[in-house]
Amino acid sequence: MTDRPNTPLLDTIETPIALRALAADQLGQVADELRAETISAVSVTGGHLGAGLGVVELTVALHYVFDTPRDRLIWDVGHQAYPHKILTGRRDQIRTLRQGGGLSGFTKRSESEYDPFGAAHSSTSISAALGFAVANKLAGQPGKAIAVIGDGAMSAGMAYEAMNNAREAGNRLVVILNDNDMSIAPPVGGLSAYLARIVSSRRFLTLRDLAKRFARRLPRPLAEGLKKTDEFARGITMGGTLFEELGFYYVGPVDGHNLDHLIPVLENVRDAEEGPILVHVVTRKGHGYAPAEAAADKYHGVQKFDVVSGEQAKAPAGPPTYQNVFGDALVEEAKRDSTICAITAAMPSGTGVDRFAKAFPERAFDVGIAEQHAVTFAAGLAAQGMRPFCAIYSTFLQRAYDQVVHDVAIQNLPVRFAIDRAGLVGADGATHAGSFDVTYLATLPNFVVMAPADEAELVHMVHTCALHDSGPIAVRYPRGNGTGVAIPAVPERLAIGKGRIVREGKTVAILSLGTRLGDALIAADRLEAQGLSTTVADLRFAKPLDREMIRKLLATHEVAITVEEGAVGGLGAHVLTLASDEGLIDAGLKLRTLRLPDAFQEHDKPEKQYAEAGLDADAMVEVVLTALRSNSAAMARGVRA
Amino acid sequence: MTDRPNTPLLDTIETPIALRALAADQLGQVADELRAETISAVSVTGGHLGAGLGVVELTVALHYVFDTPRDRLIWDVGHQAYPHKILTGRRDQIRTLRQGGGLSGFTKRSESEYDPFGAAHSSTSISAALGFAVANKLAGQPGKAIAVIGDGAMSAGMAYEAMNNAREAGNRLVVILNDNDMSIAPPVGGLSAYLARIVSSRRFLTLRDLAKRFARRLPRPLAEGLKKTDEFARGITMGGTLFEELGFYYVGPVDGHNLDHLIPVLENVRDAEEGPILVHVVTRKGHGYAPAEAAADKYHGVQKFDVVSGEQAKAPAGPPTYQNVFGDALVEEAKRDSTICAITAAMPSGTGVDRFAKAFPERAFDVGIAEQHAVTFAAGLAAQGMRPFCAIYSTFLQRAYDQVVHDVAIQNLPVRFAIDRAGLVGADGATHAGSFDVTYLATLPNFVVMAPADEAELVHMVHTCALHDSGPIAVRYPRGNGTGVAIPAVPERLAIGKGRIVREGKTVAILSLGTRLGDALIAADRLEAQGLSTTVADLRFAKPLDREMIRKLLATHEVAITVEEGAVGGLGAHVLTLASDEGLIDAGLKLRTLRLPDAFQEHDKPEKQYAEAGLDADAMVEVVLTALRSNSAAMARGVRA
Repeated sequence: MTDRPNTPLLDTIETPIALRALAADQLGQVADELRAETISAVSVTGGHLGAGLGVVELTVALHYVFDTPRDRLIWDVGHQAYPHKILTGRRDQIRTLRQGGGLSGFTKRSESEYDPFGAAHSSTSISAALGFAVANKLAGQPGKAIAVIGDGAMSAGMAYEAMNNAREAGNRLVVILNDNDMSIAPPVGGLSAYLARIVSSRRFLTLRDLAKRFARRLPRPLAEGLKKTDEFARGITMGGTLFEELGFYYVGPVDGHNLDHLIPVLENVRDAEEGPILVHVVTRKGHGYAPAEAAADKYHGVQKFDVVSGEQAKAPAGPPTYQNVFGDALVEEAKRDSTICAITAAMPSGTGVDRFAKAFPERAFDVGIAEQHAVTFAAGLAAQGMRPFCAIYSTFLQRAYDQVVHDVAIQNLPVRFAIDRAGLVGADGATHAGSFDVTYLATLPNFVVMAPADEAELVHMVHTCALHDSGPIAVRYPRGNGTGVAIPAVPERLAIGKGRIVREGKTVAILSLGTRLGDALIAADRLEAQGLSTTVADLRFAKPLDREMIRKLLATHEVAITVEEGAVGGLGAHVLTLASDEGLIDAGLKLRTLRLPDAFQEHDKPEKQYAEAGLDADAMVEVVLTALRSNSAAMARGVRA
Repeated sequence: MTDRPNTPLLDTIETPIALRALAADQLGQVADELRAETISAVSVTGGHLGAGLGVVELTVALHYVFDTPRDRLIWDVGHQAYPHKILTGRRDQIRTLRQGGGLSGFTKRSESEYDPFGAAHSSTSISAALGFAVANKLAGQPGKAIAVIGDGAMSAGMAYEAMNNAREAGNRLVVILNDNDMSIAPPVGGLSAYLARIVSSRRFLTLRDLAKRFARRLPRPLAEGLKKTDEFARGITMGGTLFEELGFYYVGPVDGHNLDHLIPVLENVRDAEEGPILVHVVTRKGHGYAPAEAAADKYHGVQKFDVVSGEQAKAPAGPPTYQNVFGDALVEEAKRDSTICAITAAMPSGTGVDRFAKAFPERAFDVGIAEQHAVTFAAGLAAQGMRPFCAIYSTFLQRAYDQVVHDVAIQNLPVRFAIDRAGLVGADGATHAGSFDVTYLATLPNFVVMAPADEAELVHMVHTCALHDSGPIAVRYPRGNGTGVAIPAVPERLAIGKGRIVREGKTVAILSLGTRLGDALIAADRLEAQGLSTTVADLRFAKPLDREMIRKLLATHEVAITVEEGAVGGLGAHVLTLASDEGLIDAGLKLRTLRLPDAFQEHDKPEKQYAEAGLDADAMVEVVLTALRSNSAAMARGVRA
């Protein structure tokens, strides 16, 4: 274990109330101790480090100046909120971050009144803050709402939609643009270039600028004559920014690590009679910790590490991850086919598109946090003869659902979707668990929906996607490592809508979709040990279903179960619908559907999550045995019989 | 019938090729004839008129200057494309607009090579155009992509996401901002105010400005020295706009009804070596037709009308529409409860929120075309103690699916969703048919999903939403008129997850969700006439299901069917899942699920769409009779028995 840092001043701060009792010149020490404590905590838990280190001073300043929790402080994404958690009554649990039963790695309403709005996906904070601000306005209550949003998150459409509506909130809304020139990967797009131009062309606000620009909190003679709205507006802003064109007062740029500047700026912003105000704060991700500052991704997400050396614990060696298998497979396809291209929405390494971009830079597109654009851009590429792969995490694809429906499915355009983080994801918890994609995609006409049982199957499915020109096709696969099977040298083109029998049996049939196949095979062994001959099928396709195989399996086995890592309405529902449509249930059918529970599961180790979800081998065996024993339904129908 | 207008020049133009053979000074006459023909056609079909009239000159100019269809012209939304359809080989079908088997009321790929990308939802055009432009760039092919997008559509996040990425396309991308200061309702937000400031503070570009600003296509001496990139950029733009900050060259404002200005501007834009370019064109919705210019909504969507007087055919008198019943019911709730508020995304009249806004202007929020923001803003309001109703059409809510999941469902916030246009919608076709909402919402933990059988039930459900503080709740209802039942003076609070038996029978059970109940009752009569005693249940809730009622109905009837106006994965799937979970199917169950087909249905009269979908009384009777006769499944299982 790492030694705990010495934090005498921080030790006295249970909540921001104690912080606000300090003199301003003590805040630098608070920040230093807070940074040390954050580093120490993450060194034992792993998690997001760089983002939090970049906002240590900002966190201290915001809680010092604003009256939290009455003033609502909303951290966009929330992964930079570890220092905030330490300052708001959660220091005693900070070394449980992202562990089962411990603190969430994001903000979360159920954790603290200091987290008024949970997050984990980006770019929601301005909309949410507007809601808080307007509710206070309607109720005639005091209280501001402060959104802290990164420059990367500003590339998302919903941030713009919110800015476009921000005038509704007046001075109750403050937006802190935390400009660290990074999302996870370097940012892209026109807005990012624009912010860079501002920062490079303007000095940071100095105390002298403040004296000139702010009417409030200054000696009376200086302030006189500047109190009226228009003059305040002219005084506080520097004029001509994009944000002002959308209706904000712009203040900045401000050095986000200089408390002597941050505090007076924020005090003036707090007391402004006009608004909404956007404060442009420039920070450095990983600030104040040399190993983080030196890392290319500024230590975005880390394993446990040694505080002194910065060396991270090695992840246990294992099979390649699905994301990298995908990336490599796509490179192979692109070597054969010059129309293959790849689109990612700010997740080049998380999706494996970085590997593709290295091999084919001109055919790789990182559009920033902009999933809606990513999908319709891909649709346009497909309509002009390209073969685009749109690689987006399952929950982030929810951001582009209408684009999937309206621009891709209705037009039947051959966009290929590579959907990572499908199913349970462990430490990131419910916000990142890809639970709904099979349901929301398989309900769409024209769509093909696949899930590989292992990384070799993924390679076949990438190949199948590449060759599928007749409409949209998706392959969904989990976070993390594959099973270790050999990667096929030559990929196969799979027949659309055809599954495979992995193990032949007679009494029990397990119809599996995706990587639960491993547990299905374990369950089959256990059932066999109890004398129950078990078939295991890998359906491969949630849509179209292998109707012939399913019909036959249902007709020839005493009990059948479907297994999927997804919520109700997906594979199981489609198999039941088939069984109903074709009258297979008329004469009795012991068919059960194993799926994710109707609840958002908390973060935990994946194996615990699977057990809790009832999707491990134990659960499969249990459901089969219970179904075999059951005659309650027959009795219930006895009413009529 | 209206007399056809006299259009001698237009008669010679089968496609833009003929148009491009004309002299520029003939284009004014083409535009006049095109306008007359558009008015004449819509007078017999009804449909979107004002938007098309506003772009008549622009349509002529774009096809004259650009090499369509090689250059890809993409109309945002597509409802302004009637003049475009007339000019691109579809004039002979123009009087079939929006009729069954006729032309779509929007652009559509299957109709014409001149429609490279279909639309109907707004704000997709820049992303799609970028796809076309980049595909051409990668393939080294000539061909530009031109997106024509309204100022209202610019409020949507995806338009911003696309602009933020536009530099990728270089000079292959042209965006025409069609600024008519209207979406359907007057536009809202900072961007709209910003555009108004530009237009009011700058003159239209004149020919003299053009001579000064454009290097190209001018006498050599004037053009010399202006050819380099930077100088071109300085020459073509006026500097300092939001669009330039995002990476565009800005040209404008240009009078969109002055062909003498439009043509040279577009020629210069076409020939520009740098890009992307945004051309700010100012038009008037309904231009050139007095009755349209005089109307508050500029004749957005019209019935058939008399060309001379502009008088529209009265819609047949009938029961109130669901949208208005919703609006009135919400006003009643708001009278009792000061925390009730309403949010619409640019559809105040379409959702009935206009009625609420009239009664409670300070509690009504039109956020513009910004569904993502609408939902998360509502979530923020709810988190601060308000009771927000988010009124959004079913297909437009797809735009905010992640916000529904991440900001509302995961946090279990009591946002009320009023989902209009659920189910089939008639003339607007597949893009507007609300087919997926039950599937995509009922799969989410914490959600309550209701559908009223008639407008009285809608009033009860609005009341039930208002009082439901424990989590998210949605009520989905169709486009159009109610059934004519009396509106209850005092609304009832419905028990969550409880249905009602509408008609008692013994042999057949029809489990209906929503307004198909009327046809279910007709089907019951017909079955009864054949000696089949029929129960009809109105389930009211797709989630949570009335498990007790369903269990009992399934156990006591010989055959049961579910009926819903939604795609696979919705009510039927949830009932089947219940039947499977509880083992009710083990001993045999004749249960069938009637739902929308697995295909996007074309626009047509609603009653024809229902018949095609297999959701009318005939289809219900047929499915029941077939199920009763069926013993094929029993035979199939005979293999084992």
